[in-house]
Amino acid sequence: MSVLEPLGCELCLHNVAVPADCNAVLKALQPIFQEQGMTETVHNWEDHGYLATYIKKNGSFANLRIHPHGLVLVDLQSCNDHMKGREEVDQLLNKVEERMKEQFQSNIKRVKRLPAILRGGVIDRYWPTADGRLVEYDIDEVVYDEDSPFQNIKILHSKQFGNILILSGDVNLAESDLAYTQAIMGSGKEDYTGKEVLILGGGDGAYRDPVATYVCIFRVPSPYYNSLSSSLHKTGKNCFCHETDAFSDKRRQPSNIDQMVIDGCKKYMRKTCGDVLDNLKGECYQVLIEDCIPVLKRYAKEGRMFDYVINDLTAVPISTSPEEDSTWEFLRLILDLSMKVLKQDGKYFTQGNCINLTDALTLYEEQLSRLYCPVEFSKETVCVPSYMELWVFYTIWKKQADV
Amino acid sequence: MSVLEPLGCELCLHNVAVPADCNAVLKALQPIFQEQGMTETVHNWEDHGYLATYIKKNGSFANLRIHPHGLVLVDLQSCNDHMKGREEVDQLLNKVEERMKEQFQSNIKRVKRLPAILRGGVIDRYWPTADGRLVEYDIDEVVYDEDSPFQNIKILHSKQFGNILILSGDVNLAESDLAYTQAIMGSGKEDYTGKEVLILGGGDGAYRDPVATYVCIFRVPSPYYNSLSSSLHKTGKNCFCHETDAFSDKRRQPSNIDQMVIDGCKKYMRKTCGDVLDNLKGECYQVLIEDCIPVLKRYAKEGRMFDYVINDLTAVPISTSPEEDSTWEFLRLILDLSMKVLKQDGKYFTQGNCINLTDALTLYEEQLSRLYCPVEFSKETVCVPSYMELWVFYTIWKKQADV
Repeated sequence: MSVLEPLGCELCLHNVAVPADCNAVLKALQPIFQEQGMTETVHNWEDHGYLATYIKKNGSFANLRIHPHGLVLVDLQSCNDHMKGREEVDQLLNKVEERMKEQFQSNIKRVKRLPAILRGGVIDRYWPTADGRLVEYDIDEVVYDEDSPFQNIKILHSKQFGNILILSGDVNLAESDLAYTQAIMGSGKEDYTGKEVLILGGGDGAYRDPVATYVCIFRVPSPYYNSLSSSLHKTGKNCFCHETDAFSDKRRQPSNIDQMVIDGCKKYMRKTCGDVLDNLKGECYQVLIEDCIPVLKRYAKEGRMFDYVINDLTAVPISTSPEEDSTWEFLRLILDLSMKVLKQDGKYFTQGNCINLTDALTLYEEQLSRLYCPVEFSKETVCVPSYMELWVFYTIWKKQADV
Repeated sequence: MSVLEPLGCELCLHNVAVPADCNAVLKALQPIFQEQGMTETVHNWEDHGYLATYIKKNGSFANLRIHPHGLVLVDLQSCNDHMKGREEVDQLLNKVEERMKEQFQSNIKRVKRLPAILRGGVIDRYWPTADGRLVEYDIDEVVYDEDSPFQNIKILHSKQFGNILILSGDVNLAESDLAYTQAIMGSGKEDYTGKEVLILGGGDGAYRDPVATYVCIFRVPSPYYNSLSSSLHKTGKNCFCHETDAFSDKRRQPSNIDQMVIDGCKKYMRKTCGDVLDNLKGECYQVLIEDCIPVLKRYAKEGRMFDYVINDLTAVPISTSPEEDSTWEFLRLILDLSMKVLKQDGKYFTQGNCINLTDALTLYEEQLSRLYCPVEFSKETVCVPSYMELWVFYTIWKKQADV
C-alpha cells in the first residue's frame, strides 16, 4: 500500500485583512470537507491564522492552512489506491477552487495545484538532483535492489530513460545517458586509434569507443563499455580495465565501487555495457577490481604512460567544509598520480558536478593549480538526460613548455 | 513570505503489529515534538493507525501519520524564512530518525527524506512535466509575468537553463534549449541554402539556420530565430515569418500565440531570438502575426510551394477524449494545408510530445494516415534540457510514387 500525498492547492489572495478574512476563508471551505463526512479540528493562532484538520473514516485526512497574509494551502493525504485516491483528491480540490473563486474572485492572485507525491510504496520515484531539487522520475519497476558491503545498489526502470543505476541514492547512469559517456571520452573529438587508455572508477560498464581499434584500456570502470565497445574484442592490443576503491558518484560519501555493481550492471544494464563485463578480460582490455592508488603508483614506478586517463571515480565533492579535506586530498592524489602516468601530450577527462554547484567546482579548479606539474584545463557543460540537471566535464592536460 | 513544506521523513518498518506497535511509534516520537513546545492533538482511527498534529506558537506545525502496515510519515510546515526554516526542520527530522533507529533498529526497512517544497512565495519553482511528474526548477528570478488576452506569459530565470518561457504553466523553451530548435529543423541534416521555409506558430524567436543563405521563412514562430539567424539578414531573398492563432505548447488548452509573447521574448530571450524579433521584417524573412489557416489557404490557392514547413504551433494533444476532437481536426487541417504548400520532395518538421505519452503519439500517427495525400514519417527522440523529459519530433514527407 502506498500513500498519495497531493500537495493540494495553493491559493494566494490579495488584500486579506487579519483576522476577519481568514475566518471568511475558513467559513467558505468548511462545508466542503464536512460534506465528505470529515471531522474537523480547528486551531486558531490569532496572529498566524488557522489550521483546520479534517479526518475521514478511511484514514485519509486534509490540512487547511490559512495564513493571514493571504496564502491558503490545502493538502490531502489519501490512503486509497492510486487511481481512486487521485479522483477523490481531484474532486475535493476542484470544489475548493470553485468555492474560493465564487467568494474571493477578484482577490485571487494565484491558484496552483501540484502533482501528488506517492510515498511508502515499493517504488520510490523521488531522487533529488545533486543541487538538492525535488524531481520525480517515471520509475515503474525495481529491477535490482541489493546492499553490498559498501553501498546500496539499485537498478530502477524508468519508462523514458531505461534502466537507471542508483548508488546509495545517487543517480549514476541510465541507459539513455550516452551523452555522459561521450562527454567523459572527449565529446567525439578524440581519435583513440592505437591509443592507450586508463580508466579509473565506475562500475556500470558503458565504455564507448568511437574507433575501437588498438585501444588499450586500463581500469575501465563500468560507466563505459557498451555494446559498441564489444568491438574492442576485435582489436589487437591488450586492454586493461580496473575496478577500484572509489567514491560514489555525484554525492560526497565515500563508497567502494564493488563487484556487486558489476554483477548488477552486466545483467541489467546491457544496453550500456554490452558483453564487456561478462569477461573481465578481452583481447584489448582488462578490468581490474582493485584499489586504484597502488596500481597508479606501480605504473608510475614502471614508467608506464597513457595517452588518455579517464577518471570516473567520483564527482567533485559537494561540500566544501573542513571535514571534506580528505576527499579533496584523495582527489588531488589521484590527479597527481594520473599526471605521472599521462604522456606529455596526453589528456585527462573527468566529470565535475552539477553546473549549479559553483563553489565546489571553483574549489576543484583550485586543486588543479596545486598539482606537482602545471596543468591547464577546459570545461564543457552537458545535458545528461537522466540527471535532470546540467553537468560539467573537465579536460585537463600538462602545460607545454614554451618553445 | 513563503511557506516551507518539507515532506519530512518517510520511514517504512517491517513487522509492525496493529495496534500495539503504532502506539509504540507514537510514544517514541511524542517527546521530540513536545520538547519543541508543540501542542499535540491525536486522532486514533483504531483500524487505520494514528494522526498526531503538533502545533508551534510561531505558526509552524507537523503531522505525524502512523499507518498500521508500518509506514510512518512526518511532515512539517514551517513559517520561518527559508534558511531558518530548513534548519528547524532538519534538526527535528534528525531527532525523529535517531529515535526511530534507537527503538526499531532492525525493523526499519527504509528511511527517506525529501527536499522541502516552497509554496506561497513570489517565485514558483514547480512546473510539472507533460507526463504529470513533479519537478522543481532552479528558478531564482521572475523576469516577466503578464497576462495577455490569450494566456499567461512568464519568463523565469533558471540558474542552469537561463531564461525560460512559460505559457499558461507550460515550459515552452529555455535559453539552454538549442536541442529543441535543432531537432525541429531536422537535426542538422538539412541544407537550407536557397530553400524556402514556412514556419508556423511559436513566439519566442529561436530560429537557427545552419547555413543562413537564401532562406525564405514564412510564419516563423518564435521558438526559432536566434542570434545565429541574425545572419538571415544578410541573405538575398525575402523571408516571411508569421505569428499565428495557435495552441499553447505541450498541453491541451488552446491559446493564441500573441504579440505580447514576441514583446517579452525580444526583450528577455535574446540569447534565443537575437535581433530577429526587433523588426518583423528583414531582408530575407517576415514575421506575420495572423491566423495561419487563411494564410495557408491563400498560399495553396496561389500555388506557392515550400521546401520545408516547420510546424511549431502546438504539441500533440495530451488528452485523447472526445472533447478533444476539435484539436485533432485542427491538427489535421494544418497538416493537410501544409502538405498542399509543400513541394513534392519537401519536408515537414514538427514536435510531437513527451515520449511517455504513447497513446497521444499513436493517435497523432493515425492522423497522418488520414491526410488528403499519402505521407510517410520518421521520428526522433531528443533530450531538451529544460523539459526534464524526452521529447519526440516528427519528420513527415509525401510518399513518392513508385517509379
